[in-house]
Parts: sequence; structure tokens; C-alpha cells
Amino acid sequence: MRITVVGLGPGGKSGITPEARQALEACRVVAGYRGYLEQIPALIRDKEVISTGMTGELERCRLAVERALSGQEVCVVSGGDPGVYGMAGLVCQLAAEHPQLEVRVVPGVTAACAAAAALGAPLSHDFAVISLSDLLTDWDAIRRRVELAAQGDFVLCFYNPGSTRRREHLSRACGYVCKYRPAATPCGVVRDAARPGQNSRVCTLGDLLEAQGNMAETVIVGNSQTRILGGRLVTPRGYLL
Amino acid sequence: MRITVVGLGPGGKSGITPEARQALEACRVVAGYRGYLEQIPALIRDKEVISTGMTGELERCRLAVERALSGQEVCVVSGGDPGVYGMAGLVCQLAAEHPQLEVRVVPGVTAACAAAAALGAPLSHDFAVISLSDLLTDWDAIRRRVELAAQGDFVLCFYNPGSTRRREHLSRACGYVCKYRPAATPCGVVRDAARPGQNSRVCTLGDLLEAQGNMAETVIVGNSQTRILGGRLVTPRGYLL
Repeated sequence: MRITVVGLGPGGKSGITPEARQALEACRVVAGYRGYLEQIPALIRDKEVISTGMTGELERCRLAVERALSGQEVCVVSGGDPGVYGMAGLVCQLAAEHPQLEVRVVPGVTAACAAAAALGAPLSHDFAVISLSDLLTDWDAIRRRVELAAQGDFVLCFYNPGSTRRREHLSRACGYVCKYRPAATPCGVVRDAARPGQNSRVCTLGDLLEAQGNMAETVIVGNSQTRILGGRLVTPRGYLL
Repeated sequence: MRITVVGLGPGGKSGITPEARQALEACRVVAGYRGYLEQIPALIRDKEVISTGMTGELERCRLAVERALSGQEVCVVSGGDPGVYGMAGLVCQLAAEHPQLEVRVVPGVTAACAAAAALGAPLSHDFAVISLSDLLTDWDAIRRRVELAAQGDFVLCFYNPGSTRRREHLSRACGYVCKYRPAATPCGVVRDAARPGQNSRVCTLGDLLEAQGNMAETVIVGNSQTRILGGRLVTPRGYLL
């Protein structure tokens, strides 16, 4: 018995790996957030679909695990990579109670990489990935991580930089970074990375202090080495040119 | 005029996105490390190939930029994601001197995601990516980053955990982590992630103090929440089950 957690990449068919596509083609049941399933209508045609809204993850994964235990071939889909704030963790937790159930995770292109590609090459040196959503994490833990990563001169990549209910998370987080980096530090914001209508802009840390976070965005804050070269955000790795 | 930097994913055709494949098909000249090009013989047949050894990156990228400036369609390939310790940074640096040259980066599945998928779901919460190679980075900066990320309770993902000349880097880095985390902390090592012969093992931080780093490996060090569930390495995100 097996359940497969599949990463769809950042959006659009051209970012789905053949391995992910084959896993979807081979399954009978697909579970996922509606917004992701709508991106792959051709791939889920003729499948049974377990679909709930954005906060129905637990229910969705429970149902998916039940189906897999009944012997059906089930895929749980996540946008981007399923291991980065995606469904792989939850499925592994639920599956742990069922030793007979094999869990297979098919990785995908995560938003950090898609956003970096749109901006240039800001993640070419060590970086920290932090979600600014406090739905499942205490804000104090988020603050502490942002500060320590800033001290360590990591490039920062913020997932979930805001939503309609928490527009101020991004500016607060950037305020913590400002203790350790100048306001002129180059940064980048990518909306709908690798999707139709993708929008990317290079800006400064100071600009982000005034910005409102948006769920469709990924934000990258440069480190002491990051610069704007030819209009692109780049963190050189140390090659002597 | 344009140059495209393409991520091949962690290895094997089934991990290359259609976007990356199309970029390769459309180009005339392919530049890349020999070891990566050997993985995609069918895709580079009939192309002109600029290939050098592992440390010839600068020369390779210079030649690739020259070709692109002469009007040819050129791809520079990187294993994994080209933005994560790959060629995107170097190409952006070199291209910055030529405003007429467009740089396009096609992201790929990076080793962190491929290794995490092989182990379970260790990157389901905030994580830091650190290269343990001191070829281009001072070891003191690496040490400082490892320590601060450990203090911040980040899951850690080590790229380039060792080579024949620096087998001890992994154990030294894990020694720094040990100041902040118990030796029983669950960890994982993946060799040849997503490639034929992939080998993954779950172990402890204590085990890694004795381990020798290897260039074909990616190492993940769990945080305070990471556990072994059903034989898999999982960092729960905080869902109440």
C-alpha cells in the first residue's frame, strides 16, 4: 500500500517534472487544495478528487490516507515542493500510525528557487527560508529566527509574507533585519512566481519596511554581498572575476 | 541576445522540467560541467558543447557569455537548481557588463528538496541551507552561520559536506551544532539524491560527529521538533492531529 505526495512546482505545466506527471497519471485518487488542482485540469480528468479549501489540509490528508489504506493508488498534491511548507510532513505524520503504508515523496521546484530565478541569482550563497505565517508558529519564534539569520548574514527568503489579515508581517520582519543590515540592502519581491502574470521587482530593505505582504508573493532579502547587477539581484559566491 | 541558465534537477531525466528541456532543445551551444552533461546525452546530441572540469566554472561561463554575445542561443546547465550554488550567479555577474544581453534562469529541483523527499519531510519547517565548502568562503563565516542557525532552531541542510581533501568538514560543523542540540537529534544523509543508486539513511547528530563528508551527499540536521516517524525523518509543522 502506498501514498504519493507530489510537488507540482510553482505553477503551470512547464514546471512539473516528468516524475510528478507520471505519478499523477498512475493514480486513481487525487487530493489537494482547490487552487492547485485548478492548475492541472487535464492531469486530474477522470480521477476521483478530494478537494477542500486552504485550511482543510488535515481533513484532506486524513481522507487521502484512508483511501490509500483501502488499497487505492492516491496522490496528494502540493504547489512547489511538497516538503517545504507542503503536505509531505502531514502525510508522513498520519502515515506513521500505519506501518504497512509506504510514503513516496516526489519533489518539485520550490518557490524560493522560482522567485530567485525571476530576480537573477540572489540565493547563490547560504540562505535561510522562513515562513512569516503565524497560524502554526508562534510569532516570537519567527522573530527570533529572522534576527539570528540576519546576524548570520544569510540571504533570507520569506514564504507567506502576508495575507489580508496580516499585512504587517513583512514590514515587521524587515524591521528586525534592519537592526543588522542597512536600509539600502538590495531585496526582491516576486508575485506569482513562474505563473502567468508573474511580476518581479527589485527594491531595498527600506522599501519593504513600508510594504504590505501578500500571499501570492515570495520575498528575498539580500545579505551583505548581494547587489544589483544589470538590473538583476545577485549574491556573488566569491569567484574572482 | 540571450543566455539561458538551466537547472537539470538532481539527476535523471525524470526530474528535468519541461521548461528546462525546451530551453535545451532550442539552443545551439551547451556549456556545463562534464559530469552533468553526461547525464543528458540525448538532449545535447548535435549541439556544440563547452565542457570543462568541476573547477573550470569561470572559464566555461566566460566562453558561454562570449558565444551568446555573438548571437548564438546558449544554455549553461547546472545540476539541481542553478540559483543554489549553481551557475546563475556567475552568469549574472559576467552578463552585467553587457546590458544588451538578457539572462534567463530556468529553475530546477534543488538537492535540499530531493534529499528531503528521500528521507521523509525534514524541511517542513523553517530551514537554513549552508555549503560546507571553504573553496570560496572563509571557514569562520561557515562556522558562524552554522552556530547561528543552530541557535535559531532552524533545520539545517548542508551542501558539499565534504570531499576527498576535506573529509572532516561535516563532523566539525556538526560539532558546532552540538553546542545547541542534543546528540540524539535526528538527522539524515542522502547520497546521489534522485539518481540511480540513491542511498538514504536516518541517523543522529552524534553519528555525524564521526562521519566523513562526501561530495555526492546532502546532509539534513533536524531541529528540536524533528523526529523519526515510521522510519522517516519528519519536522512537523504544528498541526494538531
